[in-house]
Amino acid sequence: MEDGLTAAFLEKMWSMSVSGESLGKAKYGVLDFAASAFAGKADAGVLKLLRAAEEEGGRPLAPVLFHRRRVSREQSALVNGFMAHALDYDDVHAEVRGHPSAVILPALIALADLGGDGRRFLEAYVVGVEAMARIALALTNEHYERGFHNTATAGALAAAIAGARYLGWSPDRAAPALGLAATQAAGLRVHFGTETKPLHAGLAAAAAVRALRLAEAGVQASRASLDGRLGFFAVFGQGEERARTELLREDDVPRIVRPGLWHKLYPFCSAAYFVWHAAEQIGPVPLERIGEIEIAFTVRSDAALIHRRPANGEEGRFSAEYVAALILGGRGLHARYFQRVPVDDEIRAYMDRMRRVNVFDEPPGVRYTRITVKLKDGGTVGAVGDRPKGSAGNPVTEAELVRKYDEVVDGPQAAAIREHILRLDEIGDVRPFIALLEEG
Amino acid sequence: MEDGLTAAFLEKMWSMSVSGESLGKAKYGVLDFAASAFAGKADAGVLKLLRAAEEEGGRPLAPVLFHRRRVSREQSALVNGFMAHALDYDDVHAEVRGHPSAVILPALIALADLGGDGRRFLEAYVVGVEAMARIALALTNEHYERGFHNTATAGALAAAIAGARYLGWSPDRAAPALGLAATQAAGLRVHFGTETKPLHAGLAAAAAVRALRLAEAGVQASRASLDGRLGFFAVFGQGEERARTELLREDDVPRIVRPGLWHKLYPFCSAAYFVWHAAEQIGPVPLERIGEIEIAFTVRSDAALIHRRPANGEEGRFSAEYVAALILGGRGLHARYFQRVPVDDEIRAYMDRMRRVNVFDEPPGVRYTRITVKLKDGGTVGAVGDRPKGSAGNPVTEAELVRKYDEVVDGPQAAAIREHILRLDEIGDVRPFIALLEEG
Repeated sequence: MEDGLTAAFLEKMWSMSVSGESLGKAKYGVLDFAASAFAGKADAGVLKLLRAAEEEGGRPLAPVLFHRRRVSREQSALVNGFMAHALDYDDVHAEVRGHPSAVILPALIALADLGGDGRRFLEAYVVGVEAMARIALALTNEHYERGFHNTATAGALAAAIAGARYLGWSPDRAAPALGLAATQAAGLRVHFGTETKPLHAGLAAAAAVRALRLAEAGVQASRASLDGRLGFFAVFGQGEERARTELLREDDVPRIVRPGLWHKLYPFCSAAYFVWHAAEQIGPVPLERIGEIEIAFTVRSDAALIHRRPANGEEGRFSAEYVAALILGGRGLHARYFQRVPVDDEIRAYMDRMRRVNVFDEPPGVRYTRITVKLKDGGTVGAVGDRPKGSAGNPVTEAELVRKYDEVVDGPQAAAIREHILRLDEIGDVRPFIALLEEG
Repeated sequence: MEDGLTAAFLEKMWSMSVSGESLGKAKYGVLDFAASAFAGKADAGVLKLLRAAEEEGGRPLAPVLFHRRRVSREQSALVNGFMAHALDYDDVHAEVRGHPSAVILPALIALADLGGDGRRFLEAYVVGVEAMARIALALTNEHYERGFHNTATAGALAAAIAGARYLGWSPDRAAPALGLAATQAAGLRVHFGTETKPLHAGLAAAAAVRALRLAEAGVQASRASLDGRLGFFAVFGQGEERARTELLREDDVPRIVRPGLWHKLYPFCSAAYFVWHAAEQIGPVPLERIGEIEIAFTVRSDAALIHRRPANGEEGRFSAEYVAALILGGRGLHARYFQRVPVDDEIRAYMDRMRRVNVFDEPPGVRYTRITVKLKDGGTVGAVGDRPKGSAGNPVTEAELVRKYDEVVDGPQAAAIREHILRLDEIGDVRPFIALLEEG
């Protein structure tokens, strides 16, 4: 098994050199994670999970972020993963086709007191993002299309790898822990539109923590869980050989740098950000002038946008039509539009004029959304959204991320947490920082 | 969604009439489970899981069987599932292609104090076995062949259904809990031959308990997780329509009665029981007379028998060659032959003469193993194993199960536990019985 895929992949992840640029991206990743989690801290689902944790009990070893409370490690990972992803305000990554930080960081935070300094924490996060992107690419798009939620499946493995790295384990020691994570990899897109979608981030983080705990306790597992005919990629993807190409690809630039984390200024699904980019180029159009609105997606790029006629702003987070209507209707974007408030008649009238079509003739990898507004007077206006805010070609700036953080996080320790995050690579012991996150 | 597959399946399970015959089978199922768990109670893996549970802490609400100890509900399900399956001594079910009781009963035991009387406990178990067999049939053999471990995947759903039924929930209330179990369904056969195989039984039972706890706390989930293009059977099986046929099939006889649980008199994999049946018809053959031994399997029926040259008796639990060598070598079967003791030279010499072949020309559903011993003097002796001990055509009797129990279980409460199990349908409150199991 020495030369097997699992061993080779772990060696590759451990041998990554983590540059200053990567550490910088990681710090802003942690900052945005903190803002996203703070925004979700009073979500109804968080309170449900806290009730369940209270009933289960456990040694209070790890924090519930911003709640002045400690719970067991698995519970901490579960609640914080949910919290970070509750509003779909957290980062995504195009290669992951999912949400890396909402899985990886809750796992690391749950283990934080066992580890070391801030630099090691950031390095583990960088390695986790790298692993998650490579695993998702290795699974191919078919994995997501089949109905799996990459955040959950690839996330469990990546968070276990990040955790093992943070704990200072060797690749050899990490191998069975990765196997224990792979054998818990799960999560179905059929739950999109319910609280179980953000729960997946928490379940994956908790599964990673469980995998590491069980490996630490000495539970034997396959050391080659990614290899061969029965391995993870044969079962969940397109086989070991296809996976090998992606997992072991020689790349100079870490994936947290290029294409990088896609941060969000508003809490709605990244797939609708392409819609936003197209619509903002068109700008407001009075309802009475509009005959029909066509929204064209490159193939299956609207898979996550499950609501065509959302009833409220919460459903609107996963609606191309809702986001387009907000822009074309002149409302603009604001976090309050994505709360559980009924959609009003005017926005509904905009949405009622919309229909989706697919663009079939683009090569794989090309992704855009084209909006065409057919006017009653016979003219048309249209635009293509291909570089949405936050994506590689149109990144959210560090200043914008700090502004998002400052607007969202208003607890007593808000400034202290921000200061700690932005010099996390210089902190010798992460525990006081984790205590600040716990306090909020 | 009212008429969807998920709702229809749950309605069907809830409307099952549980006959006296079913209850009788269930009682002997519990008895055999108790014996199998007792045999595994000091397994090294159990001690590892107990150490991990100690570190995690939690309210002591549910028992670790035979250990005079209580842990959290999830921990109880995890440890007891592992314990019951640790030696591969627990029941299997041909339609499940896996181990129903090692998943379903630990989940029910973890919830036992929340429920009611012994009859309800047994009814929930009967429904759980029914659900697991139907789910596995609905997934088709391809699910197992692809690399999933049915005990873990189908087990998580079935244990959640059994648990919801035990808690007295309606099908409507059970639907999101089933969804929460389905989205945690996981378990890879790549771990066969390690402690993670029995761990799968525990992980699935714990996932079911977690699903019920989260549903109880009000976490929203899809109520139609088995339905449609993104549903469980589309993702893990051959689609909803194929699943519908199996899940909703009209059958008069519960599957715990026909084909029934397959109980084991010796702790080795049921796939090797076909080998045993063939070998015992041949009987001992002196090594010096043997030229070559051919073991022929109907297609892929040796998939679980991963060790062709096991190094010790523990690996021998998953070896056709080892079981054949024990019989042909005149050793006979005994539990001690399946412990972590090196295989001796004589048994190794028998195994070195063996090779496996596949029989391709049988229709689906036909399963047997044929052993042909080619003698040095030119003759051959052979036999077909098609009704191994424990299978539907050659069941283990109730008297044999009691004998297995009495031989294996030697704790101070052994007799009291046996008495309770055999009149479990008459017991008004299961808690004193669960306390006996805890004491051992």
